[in-house]
This record gives sequence, structure tokens and C-alpha cells, in this order.
Amino acid sequence: MPAIVAIDLGGTSTRAAFFANAEPPAQAQHKLPTPSERGADAVLNRIAQAIEAVLPPNTRPDRIGVGAPGPLDPYRGVVLDTPNVAGMVNMPLRDRIAEQFGCPVALGNDANLAALGELRYGAGRGAKDLLYLNIGTGIGGGVIVDGHLLLGKRGLASELGHMQVQPSGERCGCGQVGHLEAIANGPAIARAARQRLLSGEPSSLSRLPGSPDSVTTNDIGRAALQGDPLASSVLEEAGGAIGRHLASLVHAFDPEVIVLGGGVSLIGPLFFEPIERAMRMHVMHPAYLDGLRLVAAELGDEAGLIGAMILAREL
Amino acid sequence: MPAIVAIDLGGTSTRAAFFANAEPPAQAQHKLPTPSERGADAVLNRIAQAIEAVLPPNTRPDRIGVGAPGPLDPYRGVVLDTPNVAGMVNMPLRDRIAEQFGCPVALGNDANLAALGELRYGAGRGAKDLLYLNIGTGIGGGVIVDGHLLLGKRGLASELGHMQVQPSGERCGCGQVGHLEAIANGPAIARAARQRLLSGEPSSLSRLPGSPDSVTTNDIGRAALQGDPLASSVLEEAGGAIGRHLASLVHAFDPEVIVLGGGVSLIGPLFFEPIERAMRMHVMHPAYLDGLRLVAAELGDEAGLIGAMILAREL
Repeated sequence: MPAIVAIDLGGTSTRAAFFANAEPPAQAQHKLPTPSERGADAVLNRIAQAIEAVLPPNTRPDRIGVGAPGPLDPYRGVVLDTPNVAGMVNMPLRDRIAEQFGCPVALGNDANLAALGELRYGAGRGAKDLLYLNIGTGIGGGVIVDGHLLLGKRGLASELGHMQVQPSGERCGCGQVGHLEAIANGPAIARAARQRLLSGEPSSLSRLPGSPDSVTTNDIGRAALQGDPLASSVLEEAGGAIGRHLASLVHAFDPEVIVLGGGVSLIGPLFFEPIERAMRMHVMHPAYLDGLRLVAAELGDEAGLIGAMILAREL
Repeated sequence: MPAIVAIDLGGTSTRAAFFANAEPPAQAQHKLPTPSERGADAVLNRIAQAIEAVLPPNTRPDRIGVGAPGPLDPYRGVVLDTPNVAGMVNMPLRDRIAEQFGCPVALGNDANLAALGELRYGAGRGAKDLLYLNIGTGIGGGVIVDGHLLLGKRGLASELGHMQVQPSGERCGCGQVGHLEAIANGPAIARAARQRLLSGEPSSLSRLPGSPDSVTTNDIGRAALQGDPLASSVLEEAGGAIGRHLASLVHAFDPEVIVLGGGVSLIGPLFFEPIERAMRMHVMHPAYLDGLRLVAAELGDEAGLIGAMILAREL
């Protein structure tokens, strides 16, 4: 099997992992800050530095797999636009890395690759039809149809968080309005709690240092666990929105398993329960629920790296 | 090539077509009323009657393809539930027809099969990633991913009209709330016009006999063509809802072509224009629009029959 380096390029960190035999676990991992404000060339140099950092002495990679935030063109290996990285527009990331390392390189959307990782080595093992939702600062998605990543004509598919669920909703980071991401991502959940604290609603959250401005989704999860009604209600509302959208996605994709990952999903059962309840309530026919599983991601932060490794392996 | 009979089972009509060489055009077509209120066996007999009616003398079909309203299980050939046909619950339609005619039979969802028909012989020729929306009494959907029908784990996928686009919206025929179908199908468009007529808004529609109770989407289309502001505005609103949902679906599926069919789509440009405008306005990145085509279905009523023929051909 080929020796593969996987890269997970994020707005704040660039992570690399070395897979000597194209299988997890990784033999080495390294994490460096992404110099987002210094532009595309600085980011490319940082990626190269991360790759070198995980390679054993006297070893060259046979292949490199790279996950990056969208929108990107996985067919041509081009990052179209990365809002978080200055100057990363129409950047032929795949070919630039391939030239530098002299080996084949594959590029994919980070949430898509996390879906692929969970499918092969995580919570979706054995499934052929899978939906993956990464609920964090954004809401990313990945769809597996009959064992294959759904990419679409231009490789831009599976953006399940950027679908309008409330025409009069909040403005999304992408510029559109009422997307699931704008209503139920981490910042939206924290904002909902802060607004209710500011309006004087009683909650243990108001006793936290820096409250309400510094209240995080972690704080909300912990407070809900201790029975705080405001925290529970905020999770119930965001979970309800996610669950209703999942019901719509179930009608569109009829998956076998839905995997929820990302930082906010770590809140656990108090977040999953309202999601699953709303999903089940809004599915239009019980046949859709026959064997349908809603499960937590198992690979955590490594899903994207493992997915990038799989992408490179299957080149 | 095999001689194929295709069946399109609807709530009001049962249609059959004979394709001597598994290619359109059909050599014979026949249409009979569906005895929906008389139960599953009467419907089965009617299907058999329709099949016999299109077969040339001394000819038996090599294969039969059947399209029926969902939800149904195309893998096992079972109609799970047909709200419009009394007693058609968990009916093994495929095997019942196969026993009677002694040949292989394939069963598929009617909107899925129309998508397949448009893909191979209609407005989607040459595409590999296609969305089809049938806008009529309901809003049915079909999705082609990389040349294949998206069926999902249980064969229930592609219900693009049954996705929630407005949590506080109207109740849908399926029992859920705020689905696109409930907001933008034919009856919803006619209802919106009637309500505005009842509230006294001036319109040429008020001069039609039986207005406002009997106003149809055809009337609305004709009035809009003559410049009637109420009719135009009703189409603009429904078209806007469809276009916004199409933007979401573009983010999810990244198709090459979107085909709109069904009775309401026959209104034409005055309906397509607001749909396309809203879709383009709500797509989050211009890359999605690169080469994306929104087109009218070309096969009309025959799309489902042709799709059923294709399904049987590819058995």
C-alpha cells in the first residue's frame, strides 16, 4: 500500500498525518497555525512544512491527500474561494503541492472527507447511504450515495448546512438568508443563549465569569446537563431546527445512517435527543425510519485527515 | 431488444404504452380510468386490461415496467401505501403482475421514472447529474446522480417536494407542515389567487364564470400572460418559493440541469422566470451557476411511461 500524507487545511490550523500503509491509525501527526492573513503562498509553505514534519527520515510520500474548506473543485484540484484565507482564490492547490513533492495529490472538501472517513472507519462502517453533518462554527455536510461521495457536476454538492429552512431567518456566513447554518451552528446557539440572558431570563449561565458575552456552546452543554432550563431550551430549539431539516434530507436521500460530528455535537445526548425527536416527528412516512440510525461521529478531529488519506489511496 | 409494456398508474388514470423495441416512440398507447375506490384487486385487473389493450395480436411482453405514486419499495416491487387508491397497502404489485404475465416486471416511483425519461430522451439528454421536479397536484421529484437514479437505502429518496421550506407554512398533503408541495403546488397557487380575489383585490380573474371558487392554475397562467397583476404576483410568489428551494437543492446536489415538468409548469415563461430569478439570487457562490440549465420538461405526459420502459429495459 502507498505511503500517504494527509493534510487538513483549516482557517486556524493546518494538520498533517502520515499513514505508512494507507490505513489508520496514523504513524505521525503534526499541527501548525495556518498563516491565513499572510496569503496563499504562505499557506502553501505551511502545508509543505506540515508534510515534512510528519514524514519519517529518508521517506517521501507516494501520495498526498488534502482536505480544505469549500468551495473547491475536487476534479481540477482548485480552491475556488476560501473566505478565511486571504488571497486563496482560484488556487490550483493540488498541482502546486504535486509539483513540490513530485507525487499524485488529491483535493477534497473537508466535510466531504470527514463523511468518507466516518463511512470507512467510523460511525458509518458498513453503510452505503450516509449523511454526515458537521456542526461547529459552520455546518458542513457530506453525502455518500451507494458507497460513493456525492460530488455533483462541479464537485460542489453536499452543502447540507447551506439550505434555506426559514425564509425569514438569520443571515448566513455565506451571505444568504435562513440557512440551517445560520440558525443552528455554534455561534447561533451561543447567540440565542446570550440574547435570552440579556433579556433577564434566569439561568446558571449568568453566574459564569464574563457572562453573557463569553458564553460558549460548551457552557450551554454543561449547564443543560445540570438541568438549567434556559440552556436546555436553547439546545431544544437548535436541535429542533436540525431535526426538521434532517427529516427533509431523509426524504431527499433516504439514508441508512446519519452521522453528526463537529464541536457542537460533542454536547451529546442533550443535543442529540431533540434532534432525533424532531427528525422522527417530521418524517412523512414510517418506512423512512425503518433501520435509520442517527449516531455520533467516532473519529473526532481525525475524520478529515482519514478521509483525505482515503481520497489519496483511491486516486 | 425486448418488447416492453410500460404502465403509468395514477390516482385517476391508468395508462399503458407498448414499445416493440425498447425505444420510444410507443407503437400503441391506451388510457383507462383507475378504479381507485374499488380497491387493490380492481386496480390490478385494470392494469392487466390496459396491458392487453396495447399488445399487438399474438404478442406477449418480454418485460413490463410500472410507475406508481409513492411511497413504494422499488427493490422489492411493493407499493407501501397509495393514499389515492383504497386498500393499496404493502401490495406486492411487481410480483402480482409478473405472475399474471409470466415476464420480469420492474416497479418505480412515477416522478423518479419521469426524471429517467427526461434524462435519456427529453430535456436532460447528455446530462449525468439532473434534478427533476414535477409541479402539479403534488410536487414530485427525481434525482439523477452520475447517471443513476438516486433511490436511497429503502428506495424512498428524491422526494424533493416534501422538504420543509417554511416551518410555519401550510399543512402538506403528506401530513407534515411547510413542505414546498404545500406552498407551491397547483392547488396552493389557485388557493392563493382565490384568497386575494375574496379579499377584493382587482383582477381579470374575478370576471371568469364561477370565480373565485373555480379559478385554476390555467386561468392564472392565462391572466398573467395578459398582464393581470394579481395573477402575475401569485406566480411570482410561488415561483420564488420554488426558486429558493432549487437554490438549496443546487447546494445539496450541484446538478448540471434542472428539469421542471407537470401541469403547472405548462404555464411557461411567466412561471419559469421568477423561479430562475429566485434560484440564481439565492445560490451562495457563482460557481454553482456555471453551465447550470433550468429547462422545461420535453416529454410531457409520456415521461413516466418512457421512464417505466427504461426501467424494464435495464432490468
